Amino acid sequence: MKSKRIAPPAQYPMPILTTLVLALLLLFGSAPLVAADDPLPSWNDTAPKKAIVAFVERVTKPGSPDFVPAPERIAVFDNDGTLWAEQPMYVQGLFLVDRVKALAPQHPEWHTQEPFASLLKGDMQGVAAAGEKGLIDMLVATHTGMTTEEFSTTVRDWIATAKHPKTGKLYTEMVYQPMLELLAYLRANGFKTFIVSGGGIDFMRPWTEQVYGIPPEQVVGSSGKLKFEMRDGQPVLLKLPAIDLIDDKEGKPVGIQSHIGRRPIAAFGNSDGDLPMLQWTTAGSGPRFALIVHHTDAAREWAYDRTSHVGKLDKALDEAIAKGWTVVSMKDDWNTIFPK
Amino acid sequence: MKSKRIAPPAQYPMPILTTLVLALLLLFGSAPLVAADDPLPSWNDTAPKKAIVAFVERVTKPGSPDFVPAPERIAVFDNDGTLWAEQPMYVQGLFLVDRVKALAPQHPEWHTQEPFASLLKGDMQGVAAAGEKGLIDMLVATHTGMTTEEFSTTVRDWIATAKHPKTGKLYTEMVYQPMLELLAYLRANGFKTFIVSGGGIDFMRPWTEQVYGIPPEQVVGSSGKLKFEMRDGQPVLLKLPAIDLIDDKEGKPVGIQSHIGRRPIAAFGNSDGDLPMLQWTTAGSGPRFALIVHHTDAAREWAYDRTSHVGKLDKALDEAIAKGWTVVSMKDDWNTIFPK
Repeated sequence: MKSKRIAPPAQYPMPILTTLVLALLLLFGSAPLVAADDPLPSWNDTAPKKAIVAFVERVTKPGSPDFVPAPERIAVFDNDGTLWAEQPMYVQGLFLVDRVKALAPQHPEWHTQEPFASLLKGDMQGVAAAGEKGLIDMLVATHTGMTTEEFSTTVRDWIATAKHPKTGKLYTEMVYQPMLELLAYLRANGFKTFIVSGGGIDFMRPWTEQVYGIPPEQVVGSSGKLKFEMRDGQPVLLKLPAIDLIDDKEGKPVGIQSHIGRRPIAAFGNSDGDLPMLQWTTAGSGPRFALIVHHTDAAREWAYDRTSHVGKLDKALDEAIAKGWTVVSMKDDWNTIFPK
Repeated sequence: MKSKRIAPPAQYPMPILTTLVLALLLLFGSAPLVAADDPLPSWNDTAPKKAIVAFVERVTKPGSPDFVPAPERIAVFDNDGTLWAEQPMYVQGLFLVDRVKALAPQHPEWHTQEPFASLLKGDMQGVAAAGEKGLIDMLVATHTGMTTEEFSTTVRDWIATAKHPKTGKLYTEMVYQPMLELLAYLRANGFKTFIVSGGGIDFMRPWTEQVYGIPPEQVVGSSGKLKFEMRDGQPVLLKLPAIDLIDDKEGKPVGIQSHIGRRPIAAFGNSDGDLPMLQWTTAGSGPRFALIVHHTDAAREWAYDRTSHVGKLDKALDEAIAKGWTVVSMKDDWNTIFPK
């Protein structure tokens, strides 16, 4: 899947003259890249793309005062709303709904127990009325009590088949093509790319390597406690109903320190939940890069920001403007949203 | 420091004939490696070295039924007693003692408060009498209450100068040369090497990259809770006096899952604290490798196992023998212990 999505080199016959011209360009260096070599073809030639390329060139140019050795080229990405769509609800929320429905036959008591009863009747207002406690009850019922491997298999099976309620696409087809190109471009320039998401670490790891090229050890997310035990002589890790880290807002720099142990030099987010991560990243010395994806495209995706119930972008937008961080307008700066 | 320690290629004049022979060897492949190319020169040609090389060749040979794709070649290493010496006391324990002494002028109350009073008088039996609570009090006093960057600087300064009480060497000179070669050999074969230690994650990360070539994001260790806050407009992470993970015994597979999210295919330890990590690693499907460093060399290092107060090796030794894991006798299998 990955190899199809990350801009394949254009294949066309290359006459001798073109070969000669390219050879001359290589010989004399510093010529502008020809279009076929553009690593970010889904980005318009507007300010965000220029800022990204300028930053990467600054930190990778040997001998430059802003050169950053490869091991320190850490880039962190929020997931929901930054790498894939998060409307009308976080994908993990839709997974949770499907899991409650799938497990209901084993739980006859749920037909009278809130918020399960409302959910099974399709009454989402009733679910919302149960508030945070209701959400935690559903999380415990669907995300804990099994081994890590059992949960991983459940996620893999679901993500391979579940479809988005509006677009009918797989959720992994609703990742942003420009961000896939950006991830590949950074990695080609020696960056190590990490996800730092409020979403569950165990919900993301089964598919991020295939979809984003990000292996499980570079995924940071919200997590629950685990317990090692022997079952029939085989060791297993049980998912316990106890929170370990909420990797959102002030939890994001904590997750970064815990998992990476080194301050990133570039951070990419889309909401107020990402603000502390952007602050932590940009407060380091030397060159730093911060980018916010602003959802401005109601026609091709969604348009939302300061008053949204999902991915609210308010304080972080003000701070981005005040501090000169890069703000991407999806409508204006991306010529493609989803992979084709 | 690293580049000096990890077996540099031997430099000698190479007559034309040798060049031709080497070219022929390359051409016809599969010829035995010449001695100068031995990636593990500090290992004697005994069973452990043969087992390591055989395993690496099995999992890296394309087309072989035991081939493991590079992203899944995860190798985990205990630190104390596996990568560096741990006698007469864990290095972090010696750091703690030095920190209590260094901080004592700011804490006049410690002269009457146990276990600080005993420690400052050099009465280690008095320290021991304060038991686990005393140890926790000293850990809180020396490892928490500062920012992550302040603590990192303290560790860096200490490790650069503190000397081992018996050998007079820097602690980073008491790493095991055969294990440095093994780390480099695995990485040259596409493995990603991780430390999974009961030691503090914040105590190891400041120096593991330089000494072992293991970057901070590949260090898993015991950790405390962190808190993000703004200080004079600058974000900091505070080290809180609350435990997050004890990365020892059953905590090691938990730390592996939390930080790596993928089961290792090779694990290296030296004590009962590593047993669950070795069990977790070897219980996966496909080729697996488990190795125990047995401290058998009283002349060149230390000899200890079943009754040691540090790095006790008892149940894990029995299980290694029962399951056919590789056991290294430092005396018999290593021709060099420390880097020269």
